[in-house]
Amino acid sequence: MEENVEKPVTAAVLIIGDEILSGRTQDTNLRDISRYFGVHGVDVVEARVVPDVLEDVVAALNALRARYDYVVTTGGIGPTHDDITADCVAAAFGVPLEEHPEIIAGMIARSGYELTPARRRMARVPVGGELIRNIVAGPPGFTIGNVFTLAGVPNIMRGMLEDVGPRLKGGKITISRTVRVTGTGEGVIAAPLEAVAKAHRSMSLGSYPFNGPQGVGSNLVLRSRDPDELAIATAELIAALAEKGITQVEEVDPAS
Amino acid sequence: MEENVEKPVTAAVLIIGDEILSGRTQDTNLRDISRYFGVHGVDVVEARVVPDVLEDVVAALNALRARYDYVVTTGGIGPTHDDITADCVAAAFGVPLEEHPEIIAGMIARSGYELTPARRRMARVPVGGELIRNIVAGPPGFTIGNVFTLAGVPNIMRGMLEDVGPRLKGGKITISRTVRVTGTGEGVIAAPLEAVAKAHRSMSLGSYPFNGPQGVGSNLVLRSRDPDELAIATAELIAALAEKGITQVEEVDPAS
Repeated sequence: MEENVEKPVTAAVLIIGDEILSGRTQDTNLRDISRYFGVHGVDVVEARVVPDVLEDVVAALNALRARYDYVVTTGGIGPTHDDITADCVAAAFGVPLEEHPEIIAGMIARSGYELTPARRRMARVPVGGELIRNIVAGPPGFTIGNVFTLAGVPNIMRGMLEDVGPRLKGGKITISRTVRVTGTGEGVIAAPLEAVAKAHRSMSLGSYPFNGPQGVGSNLVLRSRDPDELAIATAELIAALAEKGITQVEEVDPAS
Repeated sequence: MEENVEKPVTAAVLIIGDEILSGRTQDTNLRDISRYFGVHGVDVVEARVVPDVLEDVVAALNALRARYDYVVTTGGIGPTHDDITADCVAAAFGVPLEEHPEIIAGMIARSGYELTPARRRMARVPVGGELIRNIVAGPPGFTIGNVFTLAGVPNIMRGMLEDVGPRLKGGKITISRTVRVTGTGEGVIAAPLEAVAKAHRSMSLGSYPFNGPQGVGSNLVLRSRDPDELAIATAELIAALAEKGITQVEEVDPAS
């Protein structure tokens, strides 16, 4: 993996599917892609959800691929009429689709699998694209330019990510630490938190309040590409909270 | 509620927050808003997730509010420095923020609640905005123009939706029926499904495959604003599947 110390390496996720926008299906792919890309040094910095409408997908894809280092699309690569992602990617890049011989060969080799016109749809890849291995079920994804086109079904999508990782040229990895404050609301935490945020402008400091069985409080998340600055800022934050008499403070697992 | 038979009434959801893009937090607000708006006759047709960066939020908000009948924002209305949504909405509409007397009065009335500068931040509403009641915890949301600005914490957001519903002027409600096919893959289902989709172009027909303990198959979801056409298309689909020898077919609850 190449290291890019200067500039964060960025990605966007484009989620394609009426079923997400109708509320029928709960998307989880954004979270999985964000985490996976994060450990590869690529920050997901925007996501969009669009319906199964060619013009909408093409417009979003062209906007995102021009702006970010990578774009991941999920959904719409199956055999039915509403699976139009390959058409959209080809249209966005201005190239035709062609049946990929490797996919057709795989289908022919599968015993009892009839090569219906619908299944042939799944073999179509934009000219110039490369396959993304599918180790779970169904057809492969593909990549062209800075775009990765993956399945929408979560476990299939996660399997495909394993073949995306080695292709990413990530930058420094963003790491995080979480300071959990219990028994104090955000209205009191805000001032010491902001003071530390202002002293470390290259970092991201967020406050995520909770109010449940475990009491009232907030998880304060510090994120940085520089482990030393992260440690310093975390210590400063704990000290700044203590100065305000806030001592029900513990460092917790970043993901908790 | 007014009825608009001619044109679907549309909405977009703008999810604001680094924690969603980092993968730390799983968003569920999109699904909840889509379902709630759906039963009020408003179709969510696009969603975006953007970081806590003013220019990015303003650009997305202005793009979405120009294009759709309604926009809902979630997140960033708390008291900490990273809560910038009110600033973004005010900037998008080109109006200043002012402390809302009702919010300040509510804060003063709360015993033991110190009116810190951070908490005063939560009282800021764009000039011309109206409050959205918060029946759960924390400050209210607000609405200005065609934009509703709600909390990011899911149970607080859901409470606020109850005060959004009566303000929506929805159209005809989109209803759905789901035909579950078991024992047959999408590659065979695709042709009869497409035939019905082509005969009912004003409807949305989607196929959502499954492959798990319950076997292989697909949920075929038919969506329409016209209950009669929905019933006809559903019957046609079941007949078209039967013609291909596909008979492991049952109608199931739309949400299942």
